[in-house]
Amino acid sequence: MPTTGQAARPRSWAPADVGRMQLRGVAQVALSASPWTGLLFTVALFAGGWRIGVYGLLGVAASTVAAFVLGADRDGLANGLEGYCGCLTSIAIVVRLGASWRTALLAVLAAAVCAVLGAAVGHLLGRIGLPALTAPFCLVAGVLAPALPTAPAAAAPPLPGDGATTLSASELGHAFCDNFGQVFFLDKWYAGLILLVGLLVASWGAAVAAACGSLAAILTACAMGLPAERISEGLYGYNAVLVAIALAATFLTRTPWTAGYTALAAVASVPFTAAWQAFAQPSGGSPFTWPFVVTTWLFLAAVPALDRPGLSFEKAK
Amino acid sequence: MPTTGQAARPRSWAPADVGRMQLRGVAQVALSASPWTGLLFTVALFAGGWRIGVYGLLGVAASTVAAFVLGADRDGLANGLEGYCGCLTSIAIVVRLGASWRTALLAVLAAAVCAVLGAAVGHLLGRIGLPALTAPFCLVAGVLAPALPTAPAAAAPPLPGDGATTLSASELGHAFCDNFGQVFFLDKWYAGLILLVGLLVASWGAAVAAACGSLAAILTACAMGLPAERISEGLYGYNAVLVAIALAATFLTRTPWTAGYTALAAVASVPFTAAWQAFAQPSGGSPFTWPFVVTTWLFLAAVPALDRPGLSFEKAK
Amino acid sequence: MPTTGQAARPRSWAPADVGRMQLRGVAQVALSASPWTGLLFTVALFAGGWRIGVYGLLGVAASTVAAFVLGADRDGLANGLEGYCGCLTSIAIVVRLGASWRTALLAVLAAAVCAVLGAAVGHLLGRIGLPALTAPFCLVAGVLAPALPTAPAAAAPPLPGDGATTLSASELGHAFCDNFGQVFFLDKWYAGLILLVGLLVASWGAAVAAACGSLAAILTACAMGLPAERISEGLYGYNAVLVAIALAATFLTRTPWTAGYTALAAVASVPFTAAWQAFAQPSGGSPFTWPFVVTTWLFLAAVPALDRPGLSFEKAK
Repeated sequence: MPTTGQAARPRSWAPADVGRMQLRGVAQVALSASPWTGLLFTVALFAGGWRIGVYGLLGVAASTVAAFVLGADRDGLANGLEGYCGCLTSIAIVVRLGASWRTALLAVLAAAVCAVLGAAVGHLLGRIGLPALTAPFCLVAGVLAPALPTAPAAAAPPLPGDGATTLSASELGHAFCDNFGQVFFLDKWYAGLILLVGLLVASWGAAVAAACGSLAAILTACAMGLPAERISEGLYGYNAVLVAIALAATFLTRTPWTAGYTALAAVASVPFTAAWQAFAQPSGGSPFTWPFVVTTWLFLAAVPALDRPGLSFEKAK
Repeated sequence: MPTTGQAARPRSWAPADVGRMQLRGVAQVALSASPWTGLLFTVALFAGGWRIGVYGLLGVAASTVAAFVLGADRDGLANGLEGYCGCLTSIAIVVRLGASWRTALLAVLAAAVCAVLGAAVGHLLGRIGLPALTAPFCLVAGVLAPALPTAPAAAAPPLPGDGATTLSASELGHAFCDNFGQVFFLDKWYAGLILLVGLLVASWGAAVAAACGSLAAILTACAMGLPAERISEGLYGYNAVLVAIALAATFLTRTPWTAGYTALAAVASVPFTAAWQAFAQPSGGSPFTWPFVVTTWLFLAAVPALDRPGLSFEKAK
Repeated sequence: MPTTGQAARPRSWAPADVGRMQLRGVAQVALSASPWTGLLFTVALFAGGWRIGVYGLLGVAASTVAAFVLGADRDGLANGLEGYCGCLTSIAIVVRLGASWRTALLAVLAAAVCAVLGAAVGHLLGRIGLPALTAPFCLVAGVLAPALPTAPAAAAPPLPGDGATTLSASELGHAFCDNFGQVFFLDKWYAGLILLVGLLVASWGAAVAAACGSLAAILTACAMGLPAERISEGLYGYNAVLVAIALAATFLTRTPWTAGYTALAAVASVPFTAAWQAFAQPSGGSPFTWPFVVTTWLFLAAVPALDRPGLSFEKAK
């Protein structure tokens, strides 16, 4: 993932530096390297529940330490690039298993594996010019989900209906906010709102892109006739939010063409998410952020093959 | 996919040129760039039902226009390489949902996504010397299938029996023709026969290869003891038909070694198709042409590693 | 896969050479090129049942002959690299279907496909510096499993419990040995022990690594609360055994860092195996050695991206 302009090579391991690295690890979930964004994201995690906050920070720390011990790239470490997958993995584990010493041990081990997979995925994808995104988290969480004890009752998610779905104003508001919150497994609307403010602190463009992605996802899900309850829980839109941040505000230049291209990608991520839920749920799995990762990879890989002025990478590779 | 000898760069956008591009888009499903083949294929689509014909042409048009707007390669456009995945995707959608304005909108959007994925897959696979084949269609259709409302009753397909299957002469004839028809989701034997004639117009070699592939698939399915009803519907053989066209008549030189190699690939595609059906059906999916795509990729990727005189690519890469 | 020091290019096709090639094909399942290891492995196969022994040898022969006919690399042939996937595939088939002429024909065809896929996977992965491992076997066996008639009752494997699992001494002993045996689908403890002796003949380091991998897997499975019965059948540990041989005794230099890194990989392979079982079982599938293959690929791909003295490839690439 890209870093902000400031070249953040740690000169010392002073507590302030370590704290900044920790907060950046949380912020990198939304492809930002700003510690202030990380601080607001952490507040949102604690707003979702103290366990989520504690485990999120634990995951960042465990993954970053493991990457440090294994000799990962120092610049990446300082920018939090070794922390965000551990953060999400640790939260996914505590949400499923509840807090306990056994859960904490598992979260630390899983975060350490995230550090290894981050290096592997980065190395393999670096050759073809694609970013790792949250793929290490998706791999680890995807493996753990069906292997853990308290699997949810393996009911297939409800199928979409024949007509379009209508949302009440309250459902619409919840859906808009929870599309942010579900990135971190949060289901409280105010937690999602704090995440949006965190994005705004990092970059005006990222916040606008994310908000548009959230709206596009709600429109698409309603047009597909997906159930209102699940739409308002944000279950179909968190991938579109991330897709919009990645394409429109991070990897591609900001032009009207990019905006349209991103809108197509955000729309496409909704049936992708619904399909992955239908596929993974029977064995106790979840799509996690795979739809975001795969959609972004494919839409980024297409750019060099398209000769469209106005559709290009932010910086030449 | 390869193009025929004629370098078809569009000099103008005259209606005749656009029509040729449209027909080539249909023909490229079977790796041909002949507009006459495309015309016969289109006749076969309408023989299968007017909705299939209309949506097939709509898909080609939508995907080609999207690729044009996004700046895809002009030679590929003129040769129909930007149309065939949109064609198949659009047919897959109308077969599942029935014709309506909502279906048409979905088909257009899905075809546009096909254009993006075509660029992405072509870019990623071009590095390792493999063709995109129908992978963009399989990706889009594979995502839409479990996400769409009217999923079929999720019954697992019948398992093969212990002994070999015997077919009546009528079942054998239907199986032979429907192995062609199912490439386009057609289940009428005469539609399959028109497709075979279309292949013959494009290339004598492609038609012979496809016919042999169809027979090899029937033999394999019978030897495996798969149910006669499904064999005669062409559900196990359409991938073998495409594998035979791709390997024996498109990418590899025509030698006896290639013929034997292709036969092994066509035979292997049958259990692959049966397995993918068993795997995908419970979540409302289908193998689509994934078995063709993956088998062809693997058998093509093996060629450079094998030092067998008589087994080589049609033209050096 | 790497070869032992002796450059074994076949000068003649004398019976002794052919026999050695055959035994090496069996030994390469555990990444060894020693014919003595192959001899002991073959004894273990016959200890597991004469059918397993006969089909194992048949698979090695069929796959090696197919690779020879197709012009595969002569050094690889002589070192058994074209035999091990055919061996495992053939055993997987006979275990599922029982011995018969039809089974033998299927085993020969499947082994021939293994030879093609071995070339394809080797070619594709060679570019990124990764070994093929048992991926061709996993592909072929993974396709055949849901396509074959006598699928097991599609019961999902039992989920792990909430607490840790305690094993009796007898269960512990069985688990330790069967973790070796299950590499070859063997469920007799003495067959596993013979395999361990075979490893010891090839390399002291490989045997120690494998034994530690087996113990690490048992500990992990117990800590996860997986059912004692399945642990003692070796169903969770055979991938860890192979991961340990591949990482600690084959591809990486032997250092304390490698030992720790391998331990993390072996531990990670256990939930991976349990998850893949939960995922594949409903459609009649099995993880086969996919968890070993994928874990080893990812942990090998991470090494070049990590700047850790003491963690490096055995020989520079």
